[in-house]
Amino acid sequence: MTIDGVTTTADNADSVEHSPLELPGVPTVTVIGDGQLARMMQTAAIELGLSLRVLAGSRTASAAQVSGDVQLGDYTNVDDLLRVTKGSAAVTFDHEHVPTEHLQALIDAGLSVQPGPGALVNAQDKLVMRRRLAELGAPIPAFAAIDSVADAEAFFDEVKGAVCLKARRGGYDGHGVWFPEGKQELTALVEKLLEAGTPLMAEAKVALTHELSALVTRRPSGETKAWQIAESVQKDGICVEAVAPAPELDPQLAARAGQLAMLIADNLGVTGVLAVELFQFTNADGEQDIAVNELAMRPHNTGHWTQDGSVTSQFEQHLRAVLDYPLGTTEATAPVAVMANVLGAPEDPEMPMQERVQHVLRRFPQAKIHLYGKEHRAGRKIGHVNLRGQDSAQTRHEAHLAAQFLVQAQWEDGYAPSVD
Amino acid sequence: MTIDGVTTTADNADSVEHSPLELPGVPTVTVIGDGQLARMMQTAAIELGLSLRVLAGSRTASAAQVSGDVQLGDYTNVDDLLRVTKGSAAVTFDHEHVPTEHLQALIDAGLSVQPGPGALVNAQDKLVMRRRLAELGAPIPAFAAIDSVADAEAFFDEVKGAVCLKARRGGYDGHGVWFPEGKQELTALVEKLLEAGTPLMAEAKVALTHELSALVTRRPSGETKAWQIAESVQKDGICVEAVAPAPELDPQLAARAGQLAMLIADNLGVTGVLAVELFQFTNADGEQDIAVNELAMRPHNTGHWTQDGSVTSQFEQHLRAVLDYPLGTTEATAPVAVMANVLGAPEDPEMPMQERVQHVLRRFPQAKIHLYGKEHRAGRKIGHVNLRGQDSAQTRHEAHLAAQFLVQAQWEDGYAPSVD
Repeated sequence: MTIDGVTTTADNADSVEHSPLELPGVPTVTVIGDGQLARMMQTAAIELGLSLRVLAGSRTASAAQVSGDVQLGDYTNVDDLLRVTKGSAAVTFDHEHVPTEHLQALIDAGLSVQPGPGALVNAQDKLVMRRRLAELGAPIPAFAAIDSVADAEAFFDEVKGAVCLKARRGGYDGHGVWFPEGKQELTALVEKLLEAGTPLMAEAKVALTHELSALVTRRPSGETKAWQIAESVQKDGICVEAVAPAPELDPQLAARAGQLAMLIADNLGVTGVLAVELFQFTNADGEQDIAVNELAMRPHNTGHWTQDGSVTSQFEQHLRAVLDYPLGTTEATAPVAVMANVLGAPEDPEMPMQERVQHVLRRFPQAKIHLYGKEHRAGRKIGHVNLRGQDSAQTRHEAHLAAQFLVQAQWEDGYAPSVD
Repeated sequence: MTIDGVTTTADNADSVEHSPLELPGVPTVTVIGDGQLARMMQTAAIELGLSLRVLAGSRTASAAQVSGDVQLGDYTNVDDLLRVTKGSAAVTFDHEHVPTEHLQALIDAGLSVQPGPGALVNAQDKLVMRRRLAELGAPIPAFAAIDSVADAEAFFDEVKGAVCLKARRGGYDGHGVWFPEGKQELTALVEKLLEAGTPLMAEAKVALTHELSALVTRRPSGETKAWQIAESVQKDGICVEAVAPAPELDPQLAARAGQLAMLIADNLGVTGVLAVELFQFTNADGEQDIAVNELAMRPHNTGHWTQDGSVTSQFEQHLRAVLDYPLGTTEATAPVAVMANVLGAPEDPEMPMQERVQHVLRRFPQAKIHLYGKEHRAGRKIGHVNLRGQDSAQTRHEAHLAAQFLVQAQWEDGYAPSVD
């Protein structure tokens, strides 16, 4: 039997399911989602003495591999959601795709859903979020609802052709984002997408100089904590690197980014980790400025560096927050922390991944490799490397080399170790 | 149905068992044992992208709660061992109690058993270990096999009554160790224990000034790495605290302790983590000196500080070593790291543990609480607190307060937070 590309040993492996684990005095946090974010929450849950229940699509999914309380089900099915979350001290997510009405059904059943649907809708619907941020006076690029070709044409003229078209819901890693070249390409695209039933919005394309990530956590009773601002590097819409602190970022701009994330967390009633992805750009006055790009309400790829670079990781902080526990210190444990993503190559090299791991650990004994238990697929996030250091440029270089070796099974710099 | 004090939700919860998890390209490390050491190995396994299979006595045991591949069985039953370890890239342990002949059976079946029986016997049998260390010229207190009352009397005279009597096998946390006062108490004890079939040895009681822990790791192909020397504090034979680096330890003595641990690891062919527990004492020349107390060949309580105080934790290093992967950097991430154990109080306070946790996190946002998912029992190790700091005395004080609150639900220093 093959599930998600993985062969299980028995045909009925997925039909044999444990009853939920109930341990007296141990709170269960149920995470809806079975990807790497849920997997890395389990690391934090183990140490905090919590029980993490995973609503998974299959037993061999990334998080299901490492949980003692895997419950199979479909997060779009309210009955599955109600069955699996029963008895949980908190319910949280590793993605934004659970329908609002299902979240409300869980709340009606007496469950603590963190973040709640009123906050989460801002991470689900890009237009709702922008309208809300505009009300708050948060800096955002010009935007518009695109309900017709006429809307698109008007917005194209308003922003002098610098249009970024987005699906209002469901996008990730560059999916659901388009940069049409010219009005004709835009209108053709809008017509096709609206016909297919995809609700759309558009925003002014920003001539960004850098992308930043302001990561904060808020607990239901109101306490918030922020990490230092990281710079993230995106390639084809996918995060490939994060560096904390953001190198060469003006301290005043960093402070503004942090305050902005706090403002958003407070006013949207976010609980758990909030990642505010920011554009850094040169404004009309020739000054460095920031604007909000996207929000995520869960641990975020741009925050993976906190696992090895902060006293409290984003995964631990998220669990503390969703249970309304006091939050942890967010101070850095090294002058620089770099995260480099391991993204599946177009073709998977012959050398097995675990052999690549050994090469990297031999060359960089200080590297922290995090793998997600996922099989190769081109462009898929299958792991990341964290590296602490003294100097941004050197640490970035080494983290990049390590991640690239895991992808390519070759050293980009031609390094050839002596045979031992 | 009640298992190990924990009620499961279904009567047949333990009879429903998953087939072993097999993930293409993902090595399985099987750990024999289901306690907190196996539980904390899982934290490291998740991040390294390994699959940790746990041979557990029950589904609700500490490590079984957090593993996606729990296999029920009895580690004294060779058929269970062979069944559960099948297909593993490595087999390791969270205790020393698997019989040597069973380990040999696993090796004969083609499995990589780390550490192997030839090394492990030195952590299983206190007399074998001392004879081996004596051959190596390692400093150890005077010792003797005690096979009769006459042996005991002779040894009592030899060491002028300063006798520590030990069961050769199976002791832990002060169990299996006796300090008889006077020859009569000794001989009565020896007679009783030998009659009950307990093989015995004795060693000279050391007038120790401190206890130290030298923690090293060795992989099968020979690479070794050491952490800085920690001081451990024992109470009634149970570790209550570890501080790294050992405060006020002479650097030359620290270097000797590290070299001694390396010598032992190399000569005994240890693989994985080796903890060398050491006595520090004033020798006949009036100088500070060291002697070996006990060995453990697995992650050890005195090394828990490495989870939050070292670039590579002992749990990660152990997994790397048993797979013969290159070892990680062991440098400290703070000037001082302290671990304080959470030991069950004589009577469990009324305040639920998770409420105590919140009090501690509120007062010490930098504290790292590690709980084992174990129910209260007087004197039982149910968790520990790690704390990084700048200053030994202050950090020890704070870690102690945090651990004691988790035990007693009261601040020992009378701290009364303002109500918020």
